[in-house]
Amino acid sequence: MDNAGYNTGSFDGLHQVSDDDDDEMVDIAGATLDFSSTDDDPPLNSGGYEEHSPGRGMNGAGGPATMMDPLEDPVPGVGTYEDFNTIDWVREKSKDRDRHREITSKSKESTVALLHRISDAFSGWLLMLLVGLMSGALAGGIDISAHWLTDMKEGVCLNGFWFNHEHCCWTSNETTFQERDKCPQWKSWAELIVGTAEGGFAYVVNYMMFMFWALLFSFLAVILVRAFAPYACGSGIPEIKTILSGFIIRGYLGKWTLIVKTITLVLAVSSGLSLGKEGPLVHVACCCANILCHLFTKYRKNEAKRREVLSAAAAVGVSVAFGAPIGGVLFSLEEVSYYFPLKTLWRSFFAALVAAFTLRSINPFGNSRLVLFYVEFHAPWHLLELGPFILLGIFGGLWGALFIRANIAWCRRRKTTRLGHYPIVEVLVVAGVTALVSFPNSYTRMSGAELIKELFNDCSLLDSSQLCRYKQDSNTTSGTSVGNGLADRPADSGLYTALWQLSLALLFKMVITVVTFGMKVPSGLFIPSMAVGAIAGRLLGVGMEQLAYYNHDWIIFRGWCTPGADCITPGLYAMVGAAACLGGATRMTVSLVVIMFELTGGLEYIVPLMAATMTSKWVADAFGREGIYEAHIRLNGYPFLEPKEEFDHKSLAVDVMRPRRADPALAVLTQEGMTVEEAEALVDSTRYSGFPVVVSQESPRLVGFVLRRDLLISIDNARQRQEGVVSSSQVLFTEHAPAQAAEAPPPVRLRSILDLSPFTVTDHTPMDITVDIFRKLGLRQCLVTHNGRLLGIITKKDILKHMAQMANRDPDSILFN
Amino acid sequence: MDNAGYNTGSFDGLHQVSDDDDDEMVDIAGATLDFSSTDDDPPLNSGGYEEHSPGRGMNGAGGPATMMDPLEDPVPGVGTYEDFNTIDWVREKSKDRDRHREITSKSKESTVALLHRISDAFSGWLLMLLVGLMSGALAGGIDISAHWLTDMKEGVCLNGFWFNHEHCCWTSNETTFQERDKCPQWKSWAELIVGTAEGGFAYVVNYMMFMFWALLFSFLAVILVRAFAPYACGSGIPEIKTILSGFIIRGYLGKWTLIVKTITLVLAVSSGLSLGKEGPLVHVACCCANILCHLFTKYRKNEAKRREVLSAAAAVGVSVAFGAPIGGVLFSLEEVSYYFPLKTLWRSFFAALVAAFTLRSINPFGNSRLVLFYVEFHAPWHLLELGPFILLGIFGGLWGALFIRANIAWCRRRKTTRLGHYPIVEVLVVAGVTALVSFPNSYTRMSGAELIKELFNDCSLLDSSQLCRYKQDSNTTSGTSVGNGLADRPADSGLYTALWQLSLALLFKMVITVVTFGMKVPSGLFIPSMAVGAIAGRLLGVGMEQLAYYNHDWIIFRGWCTPGADCITPGLYAMVGAAACLGGATRMTVSLVVIMFELTGGLEYIVPLMAATMTSKWVADAFGREGIYEAHIRLNGYPFLEPKEEFDHKSLAVDVMRPRRADPALAVLTQEGMTVEEAEALVDSTRYSGFPVVVSQESPRLVGFVLRRDLLISIDNARQRQEGVVSSSQVLFTEHAPAQAAEAPPPVRLRSILDLSPFTVTDHTPMDITVDIFRKLGLRQCLVTHNGRLLGIITKKDILKHMAQMANRDPDSILFN
Repeated sequence: MDNAGYNTGSFDGLHQVSDDDDDEMVDIAGATLDFSSTDDDPPLNSGGYEEHSPGRGMNGAGGPATMMDPLEDPVPGVGTYEDFNTIDWVREKSKDRDRHREITSKSKESTVALLHRISDAFSGWLLMLLVGLMSGALAGGIDISAHWLTDMKEGVCLNGFWFNHEHCCWTSNETTFQERDKCPQWKSWAELIVGTAEGGFAYVVNYMMFMFWALLFSFLAVILVRAFAPYACGSGIPEIKTILSGFIIRGYLGKWTLIVKTITLVLAVSSGLSLGKEGPLVHVACCCANILCHLFTKYRKNEAKRREVLSAAAAVGVSVAFGAPIGGVLFSLEEVSYYFPLKTLWRSFFAALVAAFTLRSINPFGNSRLVLFYVEFHAPWHLLELGPFILLGIFGGLWGALFIRANIAWCRRRKTTRLGHYPIVEVLVVAGVTALVSFPNSYTRMSGAELIKELFNDCSLLDSSQLCRYKQDSNTTSGTSVGNGLADRPADSGLYTALWQLSLALLFKMVITVVTFGMKVPSGLFIPSMAVGAIAGRLLGVGMEQLAYYNHDWIIFRGWCTPGADCITPGLYAMVGAAACLGGATRMTVSLVVIMFELTGGLEYIVPLMAATMTSKWVADAFGREGIYEAHIRLNGYPFLEPKEEFDHKSLAVDVMRPRRADPALAVLTQEGMTVEEAEALVDSTRYSGFPVVVSQESPRLVGFVLRRDLLISIDNARQRQEGVVSSSQVLFTEHAPAQAAEAPPPVRLRSILDLSPFTVTDHTPMDITVDIFRKLGLRQCLVTHNGRLLGIITKKDILKHMAQMANRDPDSILFN
Repeated sequence: MDNAGYNTGSFDGLHQVSDDDDDEMVDIAGATLDFSSTDDDPPLNSGGYEEHSPGRGMNGAGGPATMMDPLEDPVPGVGTYEDFNTIDWVREKSKDRDRHREITSKSKESTVALLHRISDAFSGWLLMLLVGLMSGALAGGIDISAHWLTDMKEGVCLNGFWFNHEHCCWTSNETTFQERDKCPQWKSWAELIVGTAEGGFAYVVNYMMFMFWALLFSFLAVILVRAFAPYACGSGIPEIKTILSGFIIRGYLGKWTLIVKTITLVLAVSSGLSLGKEGPLVHVACCCANILCHLFTKYRKNEAKRREVLSAAAAVGVSVAFGAPIGGVLFSLEEVSYYFPLKTLWRSFFAALVAAFTLRSINPFGNSRLVLFYVEFHAPWHLLELGPFILLGIFGGLWGALFIRANIAWCRRRKTTRLGHYPIVEVLVVAGVTALVSFPNSYTRMSGAELIKELFNDCSLLDSSQLCRYKQDSNTTSGTSVGNGLADRPADSGLYTALWQLSLALLFKMVITVVTFGMKVPSGLFIPSMAVGAIAGRLLGVGMEQLAYYNHDWIIFRGWCTPGADCITPGLYAMVGAAACLGGATRMTVSLVVIMFELTGGLEYIVPLMAATMTSKWVADAFGREGIYEAHIRLNGYPFLEPKEEFDHKSLAVDVMRPRRADPALAVLTQEGMTVEEAEALVDSTRYSGFPVVVSQESPRLVGFVLRRDLLISIDNARQRQEGVVSSSQVLFTEHAPAQAAEAPPPVRLRSILDLSPFTVTDHTPMDITVDIFRKLGLRQCLVTHNGRLLGIITKKDILKHMAQMANRDPDSILFN
């Protein structure tokens, strides 16, 4: 997940004018241009100006509706946004309310209009239904395909190559309970090629085939991503967070990204790389939602409404990834969303349920369960076990903090050194190493999800897993019953072997995940983090179990852990550990606990999970407040105003606004008296995306604000369509035209594109309040006044740069506005 | 729950000046004065002025920290609020950030300061822990006492009068499984008084004693509420919603309210009135939180921080009411809270868990379960059952809408007619009627919670409940096993009797709840609504069951409801019905589903619950958008800006601001040139709570805003402490004193109380945007400018009045600011 995707391919053109100042006031349009500016206080009015083609992108939104003259037709293109820009939430929401008002008032006139109103009211729910159905179906397809391709690495089904291992053996009649995974129809590659499954040579053949498929899958994945949709790489969650906060990245949620991401996700997961499908599923669900938005005018034309749908889609993604609809909604609320009104809460919940139900109907896991890791524990936990759970929390926090540091350092290296130029080689090398190392160890050979399932599992008497190799205790066999059979027992040598293998797997997973997350293939972090935590938890759990078994008389075990009792459940420790590690990396808390709680379906384990995740969050926060997604957002320079972080400095608006003291005066338009030529010259000589309009140069009292894009489009439009408009025509922002000489050319009246309600703060406003206003209202810029006179302007980028400066970070790392 | 509590008792003085205009601009201080103003455009500058005593209320908050001069000592009382006023969220949050900044910067100096910083950081969590422990303990006490007193109405335990029925019979050795509730130690009143439990006379004695206790309990409850804490009545949720949105009602969450509410809640629940303890438990938890806030300076002195804690306490309340911590958090988020940052989400969750755990340790239900109605259903539901579930949703929605209308009409009648003058008589009459009618019917005689438990229950073979009187079917007895025993069976005559009784109970509950909710005793709505829905659901469920049993061959039953199968679970219908009715009354959706889901612990029933609650919400919304709590807020005239409702009108800020076109000019202060006398005269002649400060009368460019309370306190303070200050001293709001004649008295410098960053909007700002700003930033007032000149002011009350006008409601119903 790095920024290279934007620098390469279709975005190379952005480097053209990279040597300019970055000192623009409202550099919305210029945002994509200043990748590498270093000069801190350059002269104003320099810098290139990229031509703005009117009507590009989504047109016809009808201009800033709040101040539109109803008599004039809206000029196409006015009120839309450029790529890599921040939307104005207030304007978008106002636009939607205008639309809604219009429909409501029209609905009283005719039945058709009334039907339109009703269909409009229900279109949100219908859209949610479609998003749920589509995402659920896609997730089911991905699950099934990934399962099949993963098994393909080990062998093939004779009944049909399209059966996976489990499916293949279902159709077999001869399978007994014990031998379920060994049926004659399923042949390993060695059996097919050299005719035997035994012996060293067969092992080598299987090994080779395993590596071959892993390399093939990863190669296909990276090639497809490179060739068709560079945006399909990574987990997508950092970008979705940024998009939901109001940023525009065209094509990031488009159909090509959807198709390529769906296919390459299956390939990447099957290749055995240390990555999961959960984050990318959120991206896939958001793509579905974005594409389906095009069916409804209400959502197609309004960036704010669209983001409400995307917030719900994020919930859908997690819902289908884990089968946890409530957890998904909370994930969207806690981790991803920026603007999450109650309406979105209800709709997210609905969509998440529909998706989970669709997935259940597809039944990809073949167990009729909604959830990925269904576990049932038989024993309650004891209060004293909170000790080890908190230890797991500390481990998770430490691992999370370490992982974030290492991964960011590695990704930065990829961005800045020549490593980033060879993404295909990188993926192949990592995939090769992963396959090479993981084949000999059965716990790394199996997929991440299977490993977690195995680790979460509570040992029953009939369990054939190596992790359940306990000695049959004489105490329990005498009073034999199912309940007693689950009692703590001494570990057998098989279990000790498994523990060794697990320890090695833990080390390997910890290292390889750092280099894997961020490669140019779809890669989620949930499963690898959970795997690390689950291994650590299981190790600790088995350790505790053995400790308790051999030391029943210790004071801490006395009373609750009598001989023959089932007092410690290692699977629960694995679950707690998984939550702790995932929490350390992502800093989720409530949503994580709810997801884990939905996985097990028991309220009993909320307290252990909560204890571990809170500890993990506190420990990790001590090393740095950012979760992995925020770290990647910052690494990529997206303009993201973190809602969780408090602005803690004492600066005032006047310290942050442009122009600074040494700068030339603010570039402003006057409400009358400027000619078309002058206005165009002003626009041409600057790169700001918007200009304040004042009463006059002498009396800089604020009248309104006009966006560069709207201004240029409108002037072009006037020149083409309005008769007599020449360069010396006056540009008028006033309501009534002033008296003019009779022979003067007709003026260009632009009040309709003027935002008459720009946000202002006074120069004395503390920055903490200003940041709060930007966050809560979703502003793009805000004007600064002193005693009613315009002083300057603050943009989101200015704020982010200021915050970076205050935190001793490089302010130039903020790339976009 | 009506407003009479404020008009009577300690608030009678508020009527003194009720004949004045209500046309004030910033009528914060005047808010409590204008109860009955009717004049719409009276002359400005009239009206009484109540003396403001400096230092009243909570002092020492240190003034508006954002613009405080660090050299001056803060004047005590500056920066605090009057009773029945709205807080300024922005100012409060800014104050807290200043405090935090100070602690952080000091922490580098010494170890003590560092420890202070650490303790400050963890004080929030500690407070949450305490709130959870205290609320959990109180809830446990309430549960146990209510259980005991409820049983007291029917009889007494010979082993000790402090045992309840169940507890009494536990200690009995002779009880068998069947006869558990008939043990010799437990004597009904008839047995004690007339010596026999049989015959008509014994019945009459029991009936009389039942009524006696009901009347006694309700009398005690209403007397205690009237005498000690008028705020203890009602559910408290409307007031808590208002308080959380930033309103101040002193004493509403105080210790007397807590004590009286806890005691009277037990009495009211035990008296058999149709009310529940869930809403009042939220109030109790909030009282606990508010009282515990006094232990920590951080929360004691900051109204915004305190509200974060109260939001969490609301979650705690529901958590202990239902044993549903996640549902509680979502309830707080969806239904109660106004400002709910992620930090509060985490803390709410923590506190809710602690509380639930404390309650479980107390184990008031004696079943080791966290939840109130633990149910386990054995059969899954079928997709076709969604039909009846949606029917239940429609019923719930209709009932909810009807209930709200009827209840509000009744409460309005209580407020406006003489009915409201006899609250004690009212309570006694309602309690008497309830007891009289409910004794003969066993389903109304039992408490609401017991009734719901009975209705939710899935019939097992050994169940002795009348609702499980099915004929033993010959089909099933042949192949007898526990699984088959649960199959659908034909109803016995006992069941038909039960259904008749239930129908009567339904009618009675529907009527009596309307008059009960809003009486002067603590009364929750959750249990009565759920009871209504559960009865309706059970009736429909049994009906469906019998229909399916006798018509296995119908096309809709074919395939899934074969003879001998357990295809329809009437208990599930009851649960869905309960959710639908509660949803119809309160308009909760997600939180309700999660609460119900936590009650059963099974993800399987989310879809039926969701279908019913969404249907219920849609149906009820068609008759009026307001839930019962919002309706009560409006009935009481609280200044509550509903975050769910969209502002849908086309008005501009200029249409809403004061002064209106016909009004006299805005009362402003100038930054220099005014004397103390002039300033005091301006303040005395108006009732506004704040005044804009402008450059000069000729050039009304905005400099800042000063609050009436702060201004008066500061002038008083200067007169007393500053030497030479006389009435002709200049009042200066500027940074530097202008040149003055040598003999002139020293000026009063008030820049420190001047808010230099008042919020402004332009006159052209659409009101939808303005409302959004008020909601999101929690503003109290906002100034309106045009081209940099001050035009007027908009307060929260102005907005609410405007909204009322737009909705064709009486704008004078908004009482407070």
